[in-house]
Amino acid sequence: MTMSKTKTKYVYDFEEGNAQMKYVLGGKGSNLAEMTVIGLPVPPGFTITTEACNIYSASNQFPPGLENEIDSHLAELEKKMGKKLGDGSDPLLVSVRSGAPFSMPGMMDTVLNLGLNDDSVKGLIKQTGDERFSYDSYRRFIQMFGKVVLRIEGQLFEDAITELKKNKGVKLDTELSAPDLLELVSTFKAIVKKETGKDFPTQPREQLRFSIIAVFSSWNNKRAQDYRKLYKISDSLGTAVNVQTMVFGNKGDTSATGVCFTRNPATGENEIYGDYLTNAQGEDVVAGIRITKPLTDLDNEMPEAYVRLTDAMTILEKHYRDMCDIEFTIEQGKLWMLQTRVGKRTAAAALKIAVDMEKEGLIDKKTAVMRVEPAQLDQLLHPRFDPDARVDVLAKGLNASPGAAVGKAIFDADKAEELGQAGEKVILTRWETTPDDLHGMIAAQGILTSHGGKTSHAAVVARGMGKPCVTGVEALDIDMANRTFNVGNTKVKEGDIISIDGTAGIVVLGEVDLVPPTPTEDFNTVLSWADEYRRLKVRTNADTPEDAAKAREFGAEGIGLARTEHMFLGDRLPIVRKMILADNEDDRNEALNNLLDVQREDFVGIFKAMDSLPVTIRLLDPPLHEFLPNLTDLMVDITRSEFTGVSEEEINEKKKMLHAVEMQHEANPMLGLRGCRLGIMIPELYKMQVRAIVEAACRCKKEGIDPVVEIMIPLVSIVTELQVLREETEQVIHDVLAEQGTDLDYLIGTMIELPRAAVTSDEIAEYADFFSYGTNDLTQTTFGFSRDDIEGKFLARYLDRKILPFNPFETIDPGVAKVLKISVDLGRKAKPKIKLGVCGEHGGDPESVKVFHEAGLDYVSCSPYRVPLARLAAAQSTIAEEVEVSDNR
Amino acid sequence: MTMSKTKTKYVYDFEEGNAQMKYVLGGKGSNLAEMTVIGLPVPPGFTITTEACNIYSASNQFPPGLENEIDSHLAELEKKMGKKLGDGSDPLLVSVRSGAPFSMPGMMDTVLNLGLNDDSVKGLIKQTGDERFSYDSYRRFIQMFGKVVLRIEGQLFEDAITELKKNKGVKLDTELSAPDLLELVSTFKAIVKKETGKDFPTQPREQLRFSIIAVFSSWNNKRAQDYRKLYKISDSLGTAVNVQTMVFGNKGDTSATGVCFTRNPATGENEIYGDYLTNAQGEDVVAGIRITKPLTDLDNEMPEAYVRLTDAMTILEKHYRDMCDIEFTIEQGKLWMLQTRVGKRTAAAALKIAVDMEKEGLIDKKTAVMRVEPAQLDQLLHPRFDPDARVDVLAKGLNASPGAAVGKAIFDADKAEELGQAGEKVILTRWETTPDDLHGMIAAQGILTSHGGKTSHAAVVARGMGKPCVTGVEALDIDMANRTFNVGNTKVKEGDIISIDGTAGIVVLGEVDLVPPTPTEDFNTVLSWADEYRRLKVRTNADTPEDAAKAREFGAEGIGLARTEHMFLGDRLPIVRKMILADNEDDRNEALNNLLDVQREDFVGIFKAMDSLPVTIRLLDPPLHEFLPNLTDLMVDITRSEFTGVSEEEINEKKKMLHAVEMQHEANPMLGLRGCRLGIMIPELYKMQVRAIVEAACRCKKEGIDPVVEIMIPLVSIVTELQVLREETEQVIHDVLAEQGTDLDYLIGTMIELPRAAVTSDEIAEYADFFSYGTNDLTQTTFGFSRDDIEGKFLARYLDRKILPFNPFETIDPGVAKVLKISVDLGRKAKPKIKLGVCGEHGGDPESVKVFHEAGLDYVSCSPYRVPLARLAAAQSTIAEEVEVSDNR
Repeated sequence: MTMSKTKTKYVYDFEEGNAQMKYVLGGKGSNLAEMTVIGLPVPPGFTITTEACNIYSASNQFPPGLENEIDSHLAELEKKMGKKLGDGSDPLLVSVRSGAPFSMPGMMDTVLNLGLNDDSVKGLIKQTGDERFSYDSYRRFIQMFGKVVLRIEGQLFEDAITELKKNKGVKLDTELSAPDLLELVSTFKAIVKKETGKDFPTQPREQLRFSIIAVFSSWNNKRAQDYRKLYKISDSLGTAVNVQTMVFGNKGDTSATGVCFTRNPATGENEIYGDYLTNAQGEDVVAGIRITKPLTDLDNEMPEAYVRLTDAMTILEKHYRDMCDIEFTIEQGKLWMLQTRVGKRTAAAALKIAVDMEKEGLIDKKTAVMRVEPAQLDQLLHPRFDPDARVDVLAKGLNASPGAAVGKAIFDADKAEELGQAGEKVILTRWETTPDDLHGMIAAQGILTSHGGKTSHAAVVARGMGKPCVTGVEALDIDMANRTFNVGNTKVKEGDIISIDGTAGIVVLGEVDLVPPTPTEDFNTVLSWADEYRRLKVRTNADTPEDAAKAREFGAEGIGLARTEHMFLGDRLPIVRKMILADNEDDRNEALNNLLDVQREDFVGIFKAMDSLPVTIRLLDPPLHEFLPNLTDLMVDITRSEFTGVSEEEINEKKKMLHAVEMQHEANPMLGLRGCRLGIMIPELYKMQVRAIVEAACRCKKEGIDPVVEIMIPLVSIVTELQVLREETEQVIHDVLAEQGTDLDYLIGTMIELPRAAVTSDEIAEYADFFSYGTNDLTQTTFGFSRDDIEGKFLARYLDRKILPFNPFETIDPGVAKVLKISVDLGRKAKPKIKLGVCGEHGGDPESVKVFHEAGLDYVSCSPYRVPLARLAAAQSTIAEEVEVSDNR
Repeated sequence: MTMSKTKTKYVYDFEEGNAQMKYVLGGKGSNLAEMTVIGLPVPPGFTITTEACNIYSASNQFPPGLENEIDSHLAELEKKMGKKLGDGSDPLLVSVRSGAPFSMPGMMDTVLNLGLNDDSVKGLIKQTGDERFSYDSYRRFIQMFGKVVLRIEGQLFEDAITELKKNKGVKLDTELSAPDLLELVSTFKAIVKKETGKDFPTQPREQLRFSIIAVFSSWNNKRAQDYRKLYKISDSLGTAVNVQTMVFGNKGDTSATGVCFTRNPATGENEIYGDYLTNAQGEDVVAGIRITKPLTDLDNEMPEAYVRLTDAMTILEKHYRDMCDIEFTIEQGKLWMLQTRVGKRTAAAALKIAVDMEKEGLIDKKTAVMRVEPAQLDQLLHPRFDPDARVDVLAKGLNASPGAAVGKAIFDADKAEELGQAGEKVILTRWETTPDDLHGMIAAQGILTSHGGKTSHAAVVARGMGKPCVTGVEALDIDMANRTFNVGNTKVKEGDIISIDGTAGIVVLGEVDLVPPTPTEDFNTVLSWADEYRRLKVRTNADTPEDAAKAREFGAEGIGLARTEHMFLGDRLPIVRKMILADNEDDRNEALNNLLDVQREDFVGIFKAMDSLPVTIRLLDPPLHEFLPNLTDLMVDITRSEFTGVSEEEINEKKKMLHAVEMQHEANPMLGLRGCRLGIMIPELYKMQVRAIVEAACRCKKEGIDPVVEIMIPLVSIVTELQVLREETEQVIHDVLAEQGTDLDYLIGTMIELPRAAVTSDEIAEYADFFSYGTNDLTQTTFGFSRDDIEGKFLARYLDRKILPFNPFETIDPGVAKVLKISVDLGRKAKPKIKLGVCGEHGGDPESVKVFHEAGLDYVSCSPYRVPLARLAAAQSTIAEEVEVSDNR
């Protein structure tokens, strides 16, 4: 039985391809083809498809027919160039390069100068008149081929060069003469013979075959596999192989090589931007050994080539409708385009280019919106280290809150406040922070802690304040007694200037220049376009009128999470402690009444700042011991007091506190008496908060403000919790409205942040007007990870070993997303119109926003400084979906 | 337009019903009908259906036709009895009682003596010749009717009686004369008039109508609603109403009333068992005011009635094929049967009755297996307080490990060990226990702690040892300095005798008599029958050869969980600490090698005890700080040392330990560096354990033992964790087998105890030969409950307020079961033959076993003493399923 076979085409001349064929020809190959087709000067060549690579990977042999195809394309190339591979008088030289569908820089192998042998090197000399260049090219080819194709230890070649230089008494490779290099060719060939037992292959066609195999094989080297795993690139894509005529930028003063961008990638300005070197090779530009010249100089030096190049740049940008990154070589006055791709750019540039191109009619608004990386926007919203500053990193920690700050390292909050009020800049530097440190944090430019993760007290509060914070700097060893800290052998005294970069998680000794945030007109333009497309609403997590106002400036459409616990800190802490310590109802009620008064003011401020936009207020969530001193500290203090003549009365006072602390002590506070469990155990607490909210709302209404009240009950795991608390909440609302003689629309909802709540969301929906996904806690309980513990202890190792592909507290994990999706489906099934949002920190992470969009949520909520990112990410999610839909049509 | 209507029957004469109609006629009504039909002497009457009740509940009126039906059934009853309701010469009196499909004792309302008025009371006097009895009946009727039907405050009637007695100068109700009671009738009528504004209804038919409405309404009283919520009885069932001719056991010395069982409910012996009172009413027997006589006395007193009764008992038992509980009344020599139902019994009786009835051919084996409550078996496996002992409870705590113990309260482990070894019985009494206390726990009869929940160290270790343990006794205030503890005002010195009941969670001052466990031949018989039917296998959680052997005796079919952390305690603790504290590889390896040697012996012992049965060994699970001193204790110790002249060297040693403790310190250890995360972070640790397991297995094989090895990797949340650790495990196995020159079958599996593992079980199944559901941790993370914290802090309140229907750490919660089911489905879909079991404590809870059976698991595993319960529960699950299937056929 015979099978009928469709003949598969494995090799494409550059003329036969185009930019859309990147899965077949790879990124490099398809762009070379595109440039060729639109008439730009590309050194001729052909591309072997990824499919050929895949067949080779699977079978360890070329697919049938590939050899013949290569032969015929090579013959055509030789004909086109009027040169022959290995020719003794005018040899064709080619490069053999990998080119996968997605850029994997440096991961796979390349062979240059292929086609040289003892015969053809003479032809090269004849053509170039440059013996040294020719022998140098030859020895480079043997060296590269030996290493890449024959897998000979590269050091052997390096050692031979070193020995030769020693023999010749020279220091630099460039000092070796043509005869020296010829000698090196022999030495290299001897190395090949010794290591492989065979002569270096002189047959160019054989050289080509082996090189192609080497590139195919490099798809599966460990480096490339790891890279693909990291960037989630499929193993089944394969790499294409580009065989291209060599051109040389180092053939004298009419030759040059360079890199350019069609617009300024730093600023986005529409101007000529690039560097080049005369009489040099591509590597020299990249390596930065010689000082490059700005591209504008080329106008004087080689005016004709310059015109050709700038024309090509214009053509490419118009063609790709994007800013392009180009590699070119000028060989003896003739321009050759060696590569192009869409160019990387800064956030500012991305915005400007997007807006300008839209104005120029090159792209539409949707495309402009898709052209800006949301995560990049962060650069524009916080001060940062001057990118040109030279920075010696003293220690690394966790990038807990973005932005950079400079100031005196100060070790306690009182002193930080004192100096801060005196106008000094300080970095509050602590083991970790507690609510007691709040005044110091307010006074500081930034916060640095040796312990704690990205949800430690320091991190959460700093993010809320928009202040830079670096936490978990394990190398930081604070010696409070001597008021110094050590990092390894470096000792830093209190008051010494340090700089921190909370975006990178870096500590620097001394002052680093900062550059201010630079949101531009373009920033607002792109975001306003984004708003036209996005389906997800974007709210903010804000606990103060100031944060709320800031977020509103950034486009927040409401508050998705106002944490009331932050209102229990600072000067309120003594009242809160009084409430917790109260041993009779009168004392407790007095404390609660005091809290009622201050909470009411808190809420009035927030409702005013958010006039007519929804405000979701979460009732108290954290365990009460967070408002009390630390157990160990207190025990040590009492023990010490007993030896240091402290009065019995004072000790008894401390012991009373100790008793309260012990009563509240928990083995796993994350999973203990907190959230709605507090509301069940101490009903007066939630009732006070609800009363404060509703009284505040009534006051606002009377003042002509429109408060949109959403009360949120946290940490529900069982519907009965919500049922009971909703009833109690409604009773209080009813009472207050009756007292005030007014009415009020309000919603009562819950956080879904426990797996049990997620899998019983149909039951819970019955008593909830909205769900807000608390993805921080949901991640903690779904994984069984305590964020505080894992970020310091084993997250780094997990990321290193690729056990986790990313930090699930930054980007929503697929498993956690699955739990969320179960909840969305159950909740919507039970109550189709239920409002669904996210108020975990993932709400400000662009990747996660996409997941939330796809899950069908109504809004995300994030810290004020992340609101713009979320707006953009939400728009991109909608647009990407439309594109997918139209792709599938 | 007219609707054609099927006439619904709402009233059934007792002759028309049967025992199968309990959903229509209620439990009481259907059994009265059944007795009537089989010819037993039941006072005639009729039953109004639950459907009528439901219609009344919904519409607040009788369904159409009900009045007529009542009229005609009443007429028939009057005809049958030859008496008329309200008749002035020979009145019919009836009772009106509720009777729901499921017993709800005392929850709903009853009216007795209905039909009395000024006229008919005279008829009653005429018939009984007893004025006092007649007026007493009349005033009781008015009182009961007033309270139940007219909703008059009962205290008003009681006050009137008290006042009358004061006026008459008597103390007891029984001292009131017939004229006194007649006076009371007038007073009661006046109360009714005053409270309702209407005269007491004299029309018997009206009395009946109101009483029926009162019973209907009582279905929805708060008490009944709460009861139904608690016992998960549907609100939609409704109650039936039984209208029955009154008979009186207090009509002189030929009348009597009593309660009897067809077999001895304490022992199960097939003998006459019951009590009665001559010339008394039913309430008198139950109230225990008068001393009852054994039923055998009736043979002499009223031989004819006795014969009739014993005959009726025989008939009923044969008819119901179960031991029956009977209420009867003898009215002037004539026996009347007033109620029957299946009788409650002790565990021993349940077993004996089941086995005897099977022998007698009354029931088959399956029925016998269904007749024993698994939870009851616990009574038979542990010593317990003598049920006849008088016990004054000193304090209550959590029932952490079942059984009872008596001994001297001893406050530290060393002293406990010392006394224990000297042959004294001690109860180790601690704040909470730590691994350091292990030797004291071994030496003690029981363990008592003031802190900690049901998974505290004390609880877990005690259950493993099968020792009684009471934890979380908050009232227990230990004063270590004076070596006393206080409970309220009671002071207990160290060395005083106390008794604890770990089944009930009770502490008693002084010695309580204990009765030993009494597993009988019947016990083994019923369990062997159970084994014939169950589909679920039953394994045990055991960490020592002794536990393993004990469990095997109880029928365990393997070990489902051998925790290796318990092997790290006791005399191994110093080695473990050495390993943790090691600051170089040599020290660590030396410690690991020492551990290897002892672990190997541990496993050899277990494999031998479980020869040819599977042994699932869990690699180390708890966080390492569990093996180190407590942070706070150590800090206090160091602080104290600085003042008490401790040498600097010693302090430095302590500080070194402190450093290690701080390094391991975690905010939420439950969610921290434990389980497979340890295996990833310290690969040598798991490798050592795997080596010990495989070397032990090889040794056993050489000795002719058949080890069935299952290695379990705990706390996996991401498939990559298992993938990496499985690879490393297999490498070690491969190495050891190569060294030993042998082979070995083994399984490698994982625990599913985190929600993320559950929702990604399809991915995880790829690398797991089995899943073992760790339902303790799964409950903790699904709920976000730290068991240690919630059991002490708010579980009681949650249960009180019915926010939780039961403790989810004892019986599997439906939400957690949902997560488990998601995992089962995904796991089986990916790997249909994957072995699935449970090794959480729920594995020994009968209700949970049923859930696991329904989820389709292969086995459950529980502590040795729970194995029999699980075997029985598993069998009942299978049989119940068969019954359901056949019911649906």
